[in-house]
Amino acid sequence: MKYQHIQQAAYEANMQLPKLGLVLFTFGNVSAVDRSLGVFAIKPSGVPYDELTPGKMVIVDFDAGIVEGKLRPSSDTKTHALLYKHWEKIGGISHTHSTYATAWAQAQRDIPIFGTTHADHNTVDIPCAPPMSDDMIQGDYERETGFQIIHCFNDRKLSYEETEMVLVGNHAPFTWGPTPAKAVYNSAVLESIAHMAYLTETINNNAPRLKDALIKKHFERKHGPDSYYGQ
Amino acid sequence: MKYQHIQQAAYEANMQLPKLGLVLFTFGNVSAVDRSLGVFAIKPSGVPYDELTPGKMVIVDFDAGIVEGKLRPSSDTKTHALLYKHWEKIGGISHTHSTYATAWAQAQRDIPIFGTTHADHNTVDIPCAPPMSDDMIQGDYERETGFQIIHCFNDRKLSYEETEMVLVGNHAPFTWGPTPAKAVYNSAVLESIAHMAYLTETINNNAPRLKDALIKKHFERKHGPDSYYGQ
Amino acid sequence: MKYQHIQQAAYEANMQLPKLGLVLFTFGNVSAVDRSLGVFAIKPSGVPYDELTPGKMVIVDFDAGIVEGKLRPSSDTKTHALLYKHWEKIGGISHTHSTYATAWAQAQRDIPIFGTTHADHNTVDIPCAPPMSDDMIQGDYERETGFQIIHCFNDRKLSYEETEMVLVGNHAPFTWGPTPAKAVYNSAVLESIAHMAYLTETINNNAPRLKDALIKKHFERKHGPDSYYGQ
Amino acid sequence: MKYQHIQQAAYEANMQLPKLGLVLFTFGNVSAVDRSLGVFAIKPSGVPYDELTPGKMVIVDFDAGIVEGKLRPSSDTKTHALLYKHWEKIGGISHTHSTYATAWAQAQRDIPIFGTTHADHNTVDIPCAPPMSDDMIQGDYERETGFQIIHCFNDRKLSYEETEMVLVGNHAPFTWGPTPAKAVYNSAVLESIAHMAYLTETINNNAPRLKDALIKKHFERKHGPDSYYGQ
Repeated sequence: MKYQHIQQAAYEANMQLPKLGLVLFTFGNVSAVDRSLGVFAIKPSGVPYDELTPGKMVIVDFDAGIVEGKLRPSSDTKTHALLYKHWEKIGGISHTHSTYATAWAQAQRDIPIFGTTHADHNTVDIPCAPPMSDDMIQGDYERETGFQIIHCFNDRKLSYEETEMVLVGNHAPFTWGPTPAKAVYNSAVLESIAHMAYLTETINNNAPRLKDALIKKHFERKHGPDSYYGQ
Repeated sequence: MKYQHIQQAAYEANMQLPKLGLVLFTFGNVSAVDRSLGVFAIKPSGVPYDELTPGKMVIVDFDAGIVEGKLRPSSDTKTHALLYKHWEKIGGISHTHSTYATAWAQAQRDIPIFGTTHADHNTVDIPCAPPMSDDMIQGDYERETGFQIIHCFNDRKLSYEETEMVLVGNHAPFTWGPTPAKAVYNSAVLESIAHMAYLTETINNNAPRLKDALIKKHFERKHGPDSYYGQ
Repeated sequence: MKYQHIQQAAYEANMQLPKLGLVLFTFGNVSAVDRSLGVFAIKPSGVPYDELTPGKMVIVDFDAGIVEGKLRPSSDTKTHALLYKHWEKIGGISHTHSTYATAWAQAQRDIPIFGTTHADHNTVDIPCAPPMSDDMIQGDYERETGFQIIHCFNDRKLSYEETEMVLVGNHAPFTWGPTPAKAVYNSAVLESIAHMAYLTETINNNAPRLKDALIKKHFERKHGPDSYYGQ
Repeated sequence: MKYQHIQQAAYEANMQLPKLGLVLFTFGNVSAVDRSLGVFAIKPSGVPYDELTPGKMVIVDFDAGIVEGKLRPSSDTKTHALLYKHWEKIGGISHTHSTYATAWAQAQRDIPIFGTTHADHNTVDIPCAPPMSDDMIQGDYERETGFQIIHCFNDRKLSYEETEMVLVGNHAPFTWGPTPAKAVYNSAVLESIAHMAYLTETINNNAPRLKDALIKKHFERKHGPDSYYGQ
């Protein structure tokens, strides 16, 4: 019973993925953390969304050890565990293979900041973490995917609290946030940004990045002490 | 009670946006004006569409002062207010981040008039207002967005009664009309025109603009004293 | 009462357009002919699909004179009338502004025959009728649109019984067939062909046209004395 | 009664095609085999999906002879029969004209392996079988389509048990698997891979193929003795 709240939160967040058109079959997973208990609830591996229940969410610790649950957790569990361990203010993580964001990841390109839809959520281009070395792939692959993301953020001096999304090169996006619901929200925002940026470059292959003053203005409308978006 | 009619009209028009596939989450807002009362009703900021009710629409005057309502109005309220103040025959305004129209805005390009779908609604390319100066951005930003639109129309000698849509460079579209329902109709038409123009250029990168005789003919089918479209 | 059968057929065919995703708002119309009575039933102009009823279909003769009905018929009625008058084996006509087919029409290009989906329905590239002269536009425009289509078929020595679809340059597609249901079917097939051809050219800008033996084979699978598709 | 199980399986698999957005009208068919009985059940030709019932599935042997059923089987029946005859471990076959996969087939290009979504299902580029000779087309066409697929796999030394999908050049995709449900699953996966690869090349026309270590890792996550995806 003591994990019910994160199982419920993980369940509800996972169920948003098909509703938002972000997954085909089982190609996605969301987790919800309880930091006081040192565990998170995550989707079981390969189980179709319409067969999910809160009770099927697997409880895992930050070293990816199973704490409770009869099913095998998502094959990406070690990535989630590592991010929770290193980024202490994350409350939820979402991973999808959404079409446009995945295409940018496959193209191994950052998504340029072209407009205010992007700037409402990020002040920087969406980073694409370069593919990992063969050694890392042959090692503890999913755990290394976590390091791949963290190294990318460290190398670029990005804050995971400000930029809540990344493209894993050749793979697909990961997003996160203070709650699992916010992590899924970010998955949908990223897919929309990725779609618009794709079209923008086709319409004008010299489309300029957004000017700094607009980046600053739009981000501050939604974030920080002077924000005035929402209630 | 005296604002109920514009609250109802604004509510119904706002609810069309998700139905027409023009918004993700809360990225859009529609307003409805009562010119005799000198106020308009507008969507509250950041409230999901499935939680909206007519009573939640905020009543605002043409200087963007809140007249009635417990919620904070849309962060774009000052843009709406300025347009109502300067363009005296507008009855409703719609703002979305619809995918194709926003991509053209991000590409900072007018949408060329390529066919009769466009000409049924406009005699000119859909104008893209150039991005504003840093001074304007750092000033009263949303109010300046209104001036950005009006200046664009003045510079090009366009009539807001004939051309009911604009792309705000780097940002997204605004549309308007005699009623809020017509403003939303125009948002959907613009998205369709933007999509078709995108495809047209890819199919033929030398696609010619529509000839003048066809522009004139199609616009007059739907508008003016000799129109014969509709009942 | 004597027109009820074509009103019903026209109504049902019109209602397929939004269901198949081929129209936005009222941008389309279908008609159904009774050749023994010398009239056809057509959608009234500008009436939303969810307000249509069989009884609202307007009865018109082959010179576009209204025979029965309280509403104004589609603004494209004269095009339908002319096609019925000249092409004596047509039973229904469908006109849409479907996205991909309209983009090809705006690009003023025939749709090349790239695959068997196309060849199952046509042995030739989908013809794009060149835009009409200014004189024709300023004259009896919708009637001239009918001649524009017929001249295109005559110039290319195409049979309207074999090729049941055309792109009107700068405008949008018209399709037809022995019944209104078949005309609408052709509208959907054309949109699918237009979409696939668009993608094919992007994937391989030297994509070859389908070889003659395959064109012949696939068309004969569905048409003619040796057909073996369907029941 | 003795064919009821494969009729039911074929029916359910066929009904997934429209649900997954993989077919327009009747442009697709799925079959289910019973190897002990030496027959398979397949969709009848040209029958709309909403009129299908399990009992309408036609029972056919591996030489495409009708064993039971009042309706004519799919026009692609001989292709199914030949594949079942030669590839002895296939349990189901699916054929669609899904938009993106068909566009690659029309472009006569293999789909490059660009990311892990692809590698989760295949270790190679999705093969596009070259168009057949005129002799083969004029002969027993649908049977030859089966040989076209098998020759492609033989020429490239591919295993049909590892690679469960192919593009037939100028035509469209075929997929298969141990069950008809898996064959349809593969149709949907292929369409998603085809869509992402299309976008990837547009975003970066020098996008590199996935590195070997990642191909190996992702395939082994889902397949073989060390797999750890699913339950």
